[in-house]
Amino acid sequence: MKRPARRTLPLHLEPASGAAWRARWFHIIFGHDDPPGRRFDVILILVILSSIAVTVLDTVAELRAGWNIAFYVLEWLFTLAFTAEFVLRLMVVKRPGRYVFSFFGMVDLLAVLPTYLSLFVVGSQYLVVIRALRVLRIFRILKLTQYVGEADILWATLLRARHKILIFISTILTLVLIFGALMYLIEGPGNGFTSIPRSMYWAIVTMTTVGFGDITPHTPLGQFVTSIIMLVGYSIIAVPTGIFAAELAAEMRAKQGVYCPACGLGEHAGDARFCRGCGAALKR
Amino acid sequence: MKRPARRTLPLHLEPASGAAWRARWFHIIFGHDDPPGRRFDVILILVILSSIAVTVLDTVAELRAGWNIAFYVLEWLFTLAFTAEFVLRLMVVKRPGRYVFSFFGMVDLLAVLPTYLSLFVVGSQYLVVIRALRVLRIFRILKLTQYVGEADILWATLLRARHKILIFISTILTLVLIFGALMYLIEGPGNGFTSIPRSMYWAIVTMTTVGFGDITPHTPLGQFVTSIIMLVGYSIIAVPTGIFAAELAAEMRAKQGVYCPACGLGEHAGDARFCRGCGAALKR
Amino acid sequence: MKRPARRTLPLHLEPASGAAWRARWFHIIFGHDDPPGRRFDVILILVILSSIAVTVLDTVAELRAGWNIAFYVLEWLFTLAFTAEFVLRLMVVKRPGRYVFSFFGMVDLLAVLPTYLSLFVVGSQYLVVIRALRVLRIFRILKLTQYVGEADILWATLLRARHKILIFISTILTLVLIFGALMYLIEGPGNGFTSIPRSMYWAIVTMTTVGFGDITPHTPLGQFVTSIIMLVGYSIIAVPTGIFAAELAAEMRAKQGVYCPACGLGEHAGDARFCRGCGAALKR
Amino acid sequence: MKRPARRTLPLHLEPASGAAWRARWFHIIFGHDDPPGRRFDVILILVILSSIAVTVLDTVAELRAGWNIAFYVLEWLFTLAFTAEFVLRLMVVKRPGRYVFSFFGMVDLLAVLPTYLSLFVVGSQYLVVIRALRVLRIFRILKLTQYVGEADILWATLLRARHKILIFISTILTLVLIFGALMYLIEGPGNGFTSIPRSMYWAIVTMTTVGFGDITPHTPLGQFVTSIIMLVGYSIIAVPTGIFAAELAAEMRAKQGVYCPACGLGEHAGDARFCRGCGAALKR
Repeated sequence: MKRPARRTLPLHLEPASGAAWRARWFHIIFGHDDPPGRRFDVILILVILSSIAVTVLDTVAELRAGWNIAFYVLEWLFTLAFTAEFVLRLMVVKRPGRYVFSFFGMVDLLAVLPTYLSLFVVGSQYLVVIRALRVLRIFRILKLTQYVGEADILWATLLRARHKILIFISTILTLVLIFGALMYLIEGPGNGFTSIPRSMYWAIVTMTTVGFGDITPHTPLGQFVTSIIMLVGYSIIAVPTGIFAAELAAEMRAKQGVYCPACGLGEHAGDARFCRGCGAALKR
Repeated sequence: MKRPARRTLPLHLEPASGAAWRARWFHIIFGHDDPPGRRFDVILILVILSSIAVTVLDTVAELRAGWNIAFYVLEWLFTLAFTAEFVLRLMVVKRPGRYVFSFFGMVDLLAVLPTYLSLFVVGSQYLVVIRALRVLRIFRILKLTQYVGEADILWATLLRARHKILIFISTILTLVLIFGALMYLIEGPGNGFTSIPRSMYWAIVTMTTVGFGDITPHTPLGQFVTSIIMLVGYSIIAVPTGIFAAELAAEMRAKQGVYCPACGLGEHAGDARFCRGCGAALKR
Repeated sequence: MKRPARRTLPLHLEPASGAAWRARWFHIIFGHDDPPGRRFDVILILVILSSIAVTVLDTVAELRAGWNIAFYVLEWLFTLAFTAEFVLRLMVVKRPGRYVFSFFGMVDLLAVLPTYLSLFVVGSQYLVVIRALRVLRIFRILKLTQYVGEADILWATLLRARHKILIFISTILTLVLIFGALMYLIEGPGNGFTSIPRSMYWAIVTMTTVGFGDITPHTPLGQFVTSIIMLVGYSIIAVPTGIFAAELAAEMRAKQGVYCPACGLGEHAGDARFCRGCGAALKR
Repeated sequence: MKRPARRTLPLHLEPASGAAWRARWFHIIFGHDDPPGRRFDVILILVILSSIAVTVLDTVAELRAGWNIAFYVLEWLFTLAFTAEFVLRLMVVKRPGRYVFSFFGMVDLLAVLPTYLSLFVVGSQYLVVIRALRVLRIFRILKLTQYVGEADILWATLLRARHKILIFISTILTLVLIFGALMYLIEGPGNGFTSIPRSMYWAIVTMTTVGFGDITPHTPLGQFVTSIIMLVGYSIIAVPTGIFAAELAAEMRAKQGVYCPACGLGEHAGDARFCRGCGAALKR
């Protein structure tokens, strides 16, 4: 049960050498430990959330009627502020390229582009909701090694289960294709199954138990096949859940491993001081 | 695997000093051990259930037509009875403030307010269904330490899994925001996706596999993205289930109880022969 | 981890004393070990399935048009045959009363009553589908101790989890009542939420993620509350699944218990001959 | 915990004796180890995926309008190519009959038949989507013993859980029959429940939480029974998931592999220090 030593923590960045203001701003912007760094982070999160709120509310017809210009101005103010922040980040970091191509660097860049893009492509400004990803920083601000550890376990579990999940998804897609074609043959365009791609969309709607009801079988044979598809889909829910639960249990058990120096027995409780198998003292 | 020693049992209340009738009524109202106390509890539960039934049935047009006045009178009778009971509780308890701000104190108060409020705000009387929470007392009446223990395990499990669940909910909300905005762009107001908030409502309907079908994608691209959203939602069901199952299994394994004859430590593993706290042999 | 010694096997029945034909028929009807007993069981199952098929097909308008009389005659033939079989069972068993009030005795009786009842109450003949329960006998015919063992594990798991499940169901019903009343207040009769009972029906449809779409929220506030209801319902799926998985895992682990005579370590693999903790020979 | 030694690997095929080109082609077609074999496999997968794409896109009215003849020609080209490949496989393998009746032999045959069949039966050409099963070969190409091992675990889990699953499915079908007949009686043809089979289709739609909404209860009693059906269906999701998770956890625990240096026995528990088969010390 060897577990790959893997960290979800972002790569290590260093302050740019040279002027002292760079080092100071580097600590304010990239640091999360001292009051100035934490204050900057909290303000940043609030601004990001406000900017998302503006974008979202801008699409509500009732609100846009009266607040049209306010939303437009706010949106540009937020974008300019984020652009300034992005440029500042580039200036204070030692290797700007490394930062830009890190996960949060990409997100920071993508978070400002849609507004500029909207000058050329109408509607693209709504893509700024990608800013939501910036909020993930919050886990770093909270600085809870606890959270990092938990996310690590979830991530390691997904990683360990990836082969099982890949096999599972291949099976699902094959079933969707075969059931989709079958229902296209049985029900036909007259009952809403106008093409195999649409039939496959319906098969996914059905197997995932979503069941919109925008397309439904009308022939008795179609309803019989649908019953089988639903029972298969229902049974299949068990598979990823079971995989994940079993892997997570294994992961959690592997985490708490102290072994008895005398008899080698493991899986001792967190507060055990003596081996439950032979009574020898445990080393911690 | 250190577990916080946590109890879901309500805080300890003491009878008011002074007149003997107070002590007697305190035991009847707050006690669950002797026949008078149990009889009071059983009657109380029945009255609560009747009062909820009256409120619920009062909204059925066919019944209200003929029983309008009866329902109205009953509702006020129940409310006056509960008010009297609440006042009595305040009178016989030593520290009324402590009782009012306890969980059941708040519920007892909220259970009578809506009816009085309905004199000023039409419709608010239906909020009396909050009385349902009063029925939770039933677990205390049953006085099954069993139940308290079980609820403890469920609660401790949720508590232990809270970091994992918080990470999970953040992920879901981020996905809902991004998918919602994407579908708003793809489908547009013409196909029912009239705003991003409404699109997000639709994304939640879809990811939770509820699938009302009041809003559905009509463009091929929208149906393709919807297929991905559904498969993601379907896979994600696995996560909370897996988290809960794994944590519960760990909790249950830690719980199974043999107590050390030397130091009294409990919660030994199923195959432990020696106390993990002091190394003394366990009796089975 | 003491498990109640519980058996799902039916109670022991003895042949009636007296005439030899009774003992012979008892073994044919109630026995499943020798060829005549097995042959009787197989024929019985086939006849039951045919009778259910007739009842089900009788409701299909296209088929009833032409086969009306055939279905009617067949239904009565089946009923008379089952009646004769029931009387025969009563005659060959030692204590008929004990048989009648056993699970399968009740089912055998209920399986013939609806047809007779249909002489007085129109439509009641469709209740003969209760005959489906008679088919459960098939597990006895297969005589797989395997199956009995497996059903035992599933049953013991449900039994052990019953307190947790009861707490869980109380919580669900309380949530359904409160959310139902809330949505009745928010959406009102104009949007399909015509009464609290109907609102509660909708709340169950939504929380179980069924989502028919016959009633849907139309106000923004209603859609917001619905989003919360769905997320709650979605999270709650985790609870019974987790309970069942964890209990089943514990049950399965308890089943395979051989303990080392030297060090007491348990949970040895099925083919282990030596303790994995201390190397001592295991006794089986 | 005796586990049947079972392999999902395909049966061993040998090259036909005689001409050297046969042995060479056998290695190209059936081998996955050397560059020529891998190249053949990759091309084959790509051709299969293209052929499926053609079939699927052929059903989209917008595309068929312009590409009708191209799709028709491509379809026949693919079919002729697959036919040639199938004949070649038969020629180079030692025992063609054994190949034809193996899983992949059957799939290879069924993958070409529908196109020929479409000369006689209109529409049958869409059955070529069965070619999707040929893509499963991809797991062999990837030659990841990892994948084979993982699929083995999933398969062994399903195999071990088959009794539990059979009991579960019988229960579901019995419930569907009884609830279907009940709703037919309660709601009747006027509300869409036109026959018991259709009622059973609805019961499956409801119990699997799909909930299309094409048929919904309209009477209060029907809605009450539906609420019970949904809660039952919702609770029942827990059962297969729990079964699968618990079995998978047991399977995974049994699998984790350290092998005994003395007797070669594997699948020791995670904390084993001595071989359970011969008692020799294990090296870690």
